Amino acid sequence: MVQAIDLPRNESGIATVTGVLKQQFGDRFQTSAAVREQHGHTTTWIQNQMPDGVVFARSTQEVSDIVKVCAAHKVPVIAFGTGTSLEGHVNAPAGGISIDLTQMNKILTVHSEDLDCVIQPGVTREDLNTHLRDQGLFFPIDPGANASLGGMAATRASGTNAVRYGTMKDNVLALEAVMADGRIIRTAQRAKKSSAGYDLTRLLIGSEGTLGIITEITLKLQGIPEAISSARCSFPSVDAACQTVMQVIQFGIPVARIELLDALQVKACNAYSGLDLPETPLLLLEFHGSDAGVVEQAETFGAIADEFGGTGYTATTSTEERNALWKARHNAYWASLGLRPGAKGISTDVCVPISRLAEIVSAAQERLAELGFMAPIVGHVGDGNFHSLLLVDEDSAEEMEKAQSYVSWLAEMAISMDGTCTGEHGIGQGKMPYLVKELGEATEVMVAIKRALDPDNILNPGKVVTV
Amino acid sequence: MVQAIDLPRNESGIATVTGVLKQQFGDRFQTSAAVREQHGHTTTWIQNQMPDGVVFARSTQEVSDIVKVCAAHKVPVIAFGTGTSLEGHVNAPAGGISIDLTQMNKILTVHSEDLDCVIQPGVTREDLNTHLRDQGLFFPIDPGANASLGGMAATRASGTNAVRYGTMKDNVLALEAVMADGRIIRTAQRAKKSSAGYDLTRLLIGSEGTLGIITEITLKLQGIPEAISSARCSFPSVDAACQTVMQVIQFGIPVARIELLDALQVKACNAYSGLDLPETPLLLLEFHGSDAGVVEQAETFGAIADEFGGTGYTATTSTEERNALWKARHNAYWASLGLRPGAKGISTDVCVPISRLAEIVSAAQERLAELGFMAPIVGHVGDGNFHSLLLVDEDSAEEMEKAQSYVSWLAEMAISMDGTCTGEHGIGQGKMPYLVKELGEATEVMVAIKRALDPDNILNPGKVVTV
Repeated sequence: MVQAIDLPRNESGIATVTGVLKQQFGDRFQTSAAVREQHGHTTTWIQNQMPDGVVFARSTQEVSDIVKVCAAHKVPVIAFGTGTSLEGHVNAPAGGISIDLTQMNKILTVHSEDLDCVIQPGVTREDLNTHLRDQGLFFPIDPGANASLGGMAATRASGTNAVRYGTMKDNVLALEAVMADGRIIRTAQRAKKSSAGYDLTRLLIGSEGTLGIITEITLKLQGIPEAISSARCSFPSVDAACQTVMQVIQFGIPVARIELLDALQVKACNAYSGLDLPETPLLLLEFHGSDAGVVEQAETFGAIADEFGGTGYTATTSTEERNALWKARHNAYWASLGLRPGAKGISTDVCVPISRLAEIVSAAQERLAELGFMAPIVGHVGDGNFHSLLLVDEDSAEEMEKAQSYVSWLAEMAISMDGTCTGEHGIGQGKMPYLVKELGEATEVMVAIKRALDPDNILNPGKVVTV
Repeated sequence: MVQAIDLPRNESGIATVTGVLKQQFGDRFQTSAAVREQHGHTTTWIQNQMPDGVVFARSTQEVSDIVKVCAAHKVPVIAFGTGTSLEGHVNAPAGGISIDLTQMNKILTVHSEDLDCVIQPGVTREDLNTHLRDQGLFFPIDPGANASLGGMAATRASGTNAVRYGTMKDNVLALEAVMADGRIIRTAQRAKKSSAGYDLTRLLIGSEGTLGIITEITLKLQGIPEAISSARCSFPSVDAACQTVMQVIQFGIPVARIELLDALQVKACNAYSGLDLPETPLLLLEFHGSDAGVVEQAETFGAIADEFGGTGYTATTSTEERNALWKARHNAYWASLGLRPGAKGISTDVCVPISRLAEIVSAAQERLAELGFMAPIVGHVGDGNFHSLLLVDEDSAEEMEKAQSYVSWLAEMAISMDGTCTGEHGIGQGKMPYLVKELGEATEVMVAIKRALDPDNILNPGKVVTV
């Protein structure tokens, strides 16, 4: 467990706000240790810093009212979705109020003719897709967890489909948000494109609740493709697999998914999901298009894979086979934990220009071996993004120190390759020093924006930038 | 000609800065009326407000130096690319210095393996594509003019390919910019995706030089498709054409271009480009993909068009025929002016959810007829965006007043349909009142950002928002 830094607490303000919210929200305002702890950071390696109370909001107006009370007394407000962020995003280093948005989970309108929908922030990606299925539509962004769409927008999340469909920044048309003074704004209309003023939509996406609290989201949707085919192919080395990916991207095959699992990850998945895949680096793919189109994509991919020594290439349009394969991929995290029972998983998240991908993945594997870590690698490699999941004994100071040194080494290597310390997890508390290394003076511009929009630093303080 | 509002001038500051720049830049600092007038607003209907001097910068450091001088004396600085913006973006309502970036026109690096390139802001889209052609790459965004890429980024431009490839916001990976105090920042690294902090890239894109001056751009590139096919199809009515477009989008055909020309526009193009297209509403299309893919797309389109009474449908993979067709489309503006020699063209730019497209285009035609305007309509209809080009006698107060009433009526109708007053031209001076109507309190958040990043309001004052 990594110690998180506590910030000064405004005790009298917190006491006042707690009293007011108890009166206004009754049972929907909780201060029990269990609820508070669950709303502090519970995933991965950062110490839990509990809020002082959790309020379960049911409407934008309620969120606005809560923020106004907190603003009046300069008390921190932290937006909470499903709590599946990985870098301490929902911690309360200065205490304050967590606004749990899970009860704001209505799908308000689906405009199927415009391929968009308007939802509340607590809707999860799986719930949305279940709702859309009958209309032949889907929402493509799929981080590992069944996260809330508000949280996904706030962290600029992506997942396995980003190579084709982009990230949250590319799939949100407009937001409604409550600002630090409780004001409610709408960032854009529902038109597919606009040049109307500053792009507040994109400014809020990835701001991790530090500039505003997202209370409504207008999302772009996709039609479910006529045909979907999936494929897998084994490779003699990570390098060969990465070279293949580079060729696929440069060739312009519109792959919907292209995921790398290294040999250790394949081994873990075999054990966890009862598969018998060859325990060498593996690419999992998905093709979306017309019946003829997916066949053509699969064939073109096969020819490229062949050049790089790909073996056991099989493509299928069977929904059952496809689901089994992707279920195993989605369970990679749990499968990995099975490699070292009782261990904590610490995930890295660097992303580099694709020409540097093979090099950094190979270097990461060597470094992990040197440090003696068991750490499977999975990657959204079509975007140059991969995760190594370090399996550590969090009670061992030595292991934790080595893990931190690896995280730091990898972030700096990615940055030196013109890449980023975080492709999709966000900055939170854990990546703050790397953000400064990555973007230098630009972070001062971020600070200026934060100060302008949240002068009392009440929105999720201690995250993203140091104010 | 519409009178633009003058803002207070800082005469002593301007005199000082003018002297300093003359000394530092010699012949690269121009104060002749001709050069100054050319750098005030010259396109469409807004009065020219000249800067006091024009400096031709050659490097980021020079831009930074110029901004520092202007900042020290609180003198306006206006970035200038090709001067093809349409809403008074480059006007100097408070005087000041125009920084002409056309000499910063180097393509610095093409990373063909990563499908990106790094360029200076003065590179034009045609120059870039000429440079890329040999490498099998292209940059898809194509506003009507051969604009500079810095200007395109600053106005969040798009064009005929946006339906498939998005707008400038979707095709820029990173920016270098000079901020209001002369500081140079980089907004992102070159990785394809990132969750590293606030999205300053997207904040600067569309900020029209009011938050920073773009001095370097990292652009995403596309591989030239294996096959390109183009097509045209005539329709009995604008409504039938729009219904077809809606179906195409909802069906998920990945059209690269789908452009509407109304009957009057077809007539103008026939006359100007020596064509003999049927003078009824027309859709022009382009399909990108594999050889088989473009054939399939063209067939699917044909079947949909048939349902809505499309006639004369022809698709071709001939480069010559394709170029002739798209050249005629790109010359639509000049062709339109030919309908009323001596008239000024005033272009509208609304964009609505596609389900409302047929309705608003038909309403626009009716209104134009009522007002007695000759005003051809062209549209990037796959995005719900269209332009009516009003041909007006700018010396007639009555016509100008009617034109303004139409622009206003159309913007408000688009906003009432959850659309935007500007799909791609930007706010500049001309659309400022509509921005407030469209986004309400969100514009106050924009003002707060503007004040934080440019406290003395020296960067392109009098544009986008009122500070």
